[in-house]
This record gives sequence, C-alpha cells and structure tokens, in this order.
Amino acid sequence: MKIIVVGGTGTIGKAVVDELKTRHEIIAVGNKNGKIKVDITDVESIEAMYQSIGKFDAVISTTGKVKFEEFSKMTADDYFVGLKDKLMGQVNLVLIGQRYIKENGSFTLTSGILSENPIRYGTSASMVNAALNGFTIGAAIELPRGIRINTISPTVITESMEAYGDYFRGFESVPVSRVALAYVKSVEGLQTGKIYGVDG
Amino acid sequence: MKIIVVGGTGTIGKAVVDELKTRHEIIAVGNKNGKIKVDITDVESIEAMYQSIGKFDAVISTTGKVKFEEFSKMTADDYFVGLKDKLMGQVNLVLIGQRYIKENGSFTLTSGILSENPIRYGTSASMVNAALNGFTIGAAIELPRGIRINTISPTVITESMEAYGDYFRGFESVPVSRVALAYVKSVEGLQTGKIYGVDG
Repeated sequence: MKIIVVGGTGTIGKAVVDELKTRHEIIAVGNKNGKIKVDITDVESIEAMYQSIGKFDAVISTTGKVKFEEFSKMTADDYFVGLKDKLMGQVNLVLIGQRYIKENGSFTLTSGILSENPIRYGTSASMVNAALNGFTIGAAIELPRGIRINTISPTVITESMEAYGDYFRGFESVPVSRVALAYVKSVEGLQTGKIYGVDG
Repeated sequence: MKIIVVGGTGTIGKAVVDELKTRHEIIAVGNKNGKIKVDITDVESIEAMYQSIGKFDAVISTTGKVKFEEFSKMTADDYFVGLKDKLMGQVNLVLIGQRYIKENGSFTLTSGILSENPIRYGTSASMVNAALNGFTIGAAIELPRGIRINTISPTVITESMEAYGDYFRGFESVPVSRVALAYVKSVEGLQTGKIYGVDG
C-alpha cells in the first residue's frame, strides 16, 4: 500500500512509519520537516499535498495542536486553536482526501484519552478529542467506495512523560511502539468507525 | 432558584420552563423572541445578557444550530456553523457565565444522541455533540466554588418527528416532557460532569 503519514516526523508518527515501512510505501509528511510538508490548518496546503502525491491507499494523521490552560483563563479564541488545528486540520485531511484516495482506502486519525479522562488544563483537549471520535463514527457510515475511517485514542506516551508527565500524574503511560500497533490495526484491518483506545 | 433558560422559547426550552416554573424564578431567553434576547455566537451579546440579569443560580441551554448535509458535500465552513453556534455558543455561555453565577450554581447544556448513533447527513452533529460531552467532563473538574456542569443528550423528540422524522427512521422518539426531566435532574440534583442520555 501507498500510505501517507501526516505527522510522520513526530514521536508517534515515526513509530508508525517504523512499524509499516517494511511492508508498505510510506510518505512521511511533516509540518516543518520532510520532503513533503503540509500545514493542516490550511486547506490549500492540504490540497497541494494530495496533488503532489497522487493516488494513495491510506492516510494516517498523528498530528494536531490544542491549547492547554486553566479553565477560568480559557477564551473562545483559545478553544479555536484546537478546533482549527487538531480537529478541523484532521477533518480536512479526510474531506479533501476522499477525492484522492483509492477505493477501499482508509483514513486513521488521532484523538486521545482526555475525551474520557479529563485532566486539569485539558478542557480543550477533552472537547477536541471527543469531537474527533464523534466525527469518525459519523463519517464512517457515509464514506463511499469502501473507504474506511478510524481514530486512535492513546493515553500519554511513555516517551513523552518527561515533557507531559506533570499533567498526567497517575496515568499509566504506554510505549509508543504499542500505540503504533493501533494504527497498523486500522490500516491493515477492515473495520471502520472504530475508536481504538490504547490505554495503560 | 433564579434560572436562565437560553432557548427557552423553543420546543425543549418551553417544556423545561413548564417543569421548573412552579418552584423557581425562570428567565426564558430566546434568539428572536422573549423579553431578553441573546445571540450565542456573539460573546458581547452573551456578556450583555448576563449583565442585564445579574446574579443567578443556574443556566440551562437548549439551543444551538448545526449543518446537516451529505458528507461528500460538507466543507470546512459547513462544520464551522456548528462549531461556532451549538458548540462554542454553549461553551461561551459557561466561559462568560462563570463570572456571574452564584456559588454552587449549575450549567446544563444540550448535546444529542448523534454523538453515539450517527445518521446520514449528521457528521457535524455527531462531531459537535461529542465535543460538548467532552467539554462537559473537562470543565466539571475545574469549575470552582461548587459550580457544576452537566449536558443532556436526548434522542429525537416526539414533537419534532414531523419535521425530522425522515432523518431518524427507526429511532424511538421521546416526548419532550421526558427530556425536560433530565434538565430538572441536572439543576436540582448535585451531580456534575454527567452526560444525561434521554433515549427511547
């Protein structure tokens, strides 16, 4: 399969590429790094990425920003950071990508455990992750030509605990190699409309 | 209690007002009708509403628009209709209202069954309803001064079946009077961070 990994230069993305590259042709796309770049908040940038790649079998997205902040200090604009980036950035990869993806292709997005297990400063992440899960089950039943969509909802990654551990006290982290398997299950399996949790 | 019902002139809102008005002081706020009006997509309009009302014990929101459309025709802008109105409109009622609400007050928002049970044309509704549920559990753990937040997630309303029944074939509708009870449970109970489903 020809598989696009958006966020393929990040922690999860690299592990996904490592897991898939022996069996598939991988195009790792970064925001700032990589031969092909994309700004997922810009629909023209997404369109240009797909045009430069041509037909493909799968898109995996392991990218997306949200704002972490104390709830009492959050503003509408702060929420729109996550809505425009992690949520609509990934949604636009599907909206635009459905015109380029091959029959029986698949989209695999990334949400996260905060949709179910909230933490301090995490209201935007809880909102956006839940929104991605809701979008996934909705899009799955309407996508034509056998095209599938699933979303991976991991807990905090062991490799990120040094950076984010303070926010996730008491959460059992999972090694990124385990998270990568969920993406493989989505792409090489046949299910659609699934939220694959990867928890401790 | 002094209770603001935003959307209090709509189908669900009127039933909620009927259920609460014998025991409480109700301020029913509409978009176009009612003595006090609010445009939930406009933070200044929300601020003006709260300033004109003064201190209160509870806000109930039974309002919010999303775009229904075939998935292959949905654009990013179509999704932003629901993100700005039903999602961020209700979130802004909380963000701004937390400065006006009394100690131990409560916010009760409205999502809907499509977060779990998608229908054709409903990807935006599934996204937005799920986002509201995620926001609710996140905000609940951070709100100070005993302030609570819950969200009601009803299935299709019997009284709306003539208008929306074609989209909800096979869904067991519930009378609006049953849906209204969930709002009472949220306001007069003590739970927080709950998604109260009202299903057939």
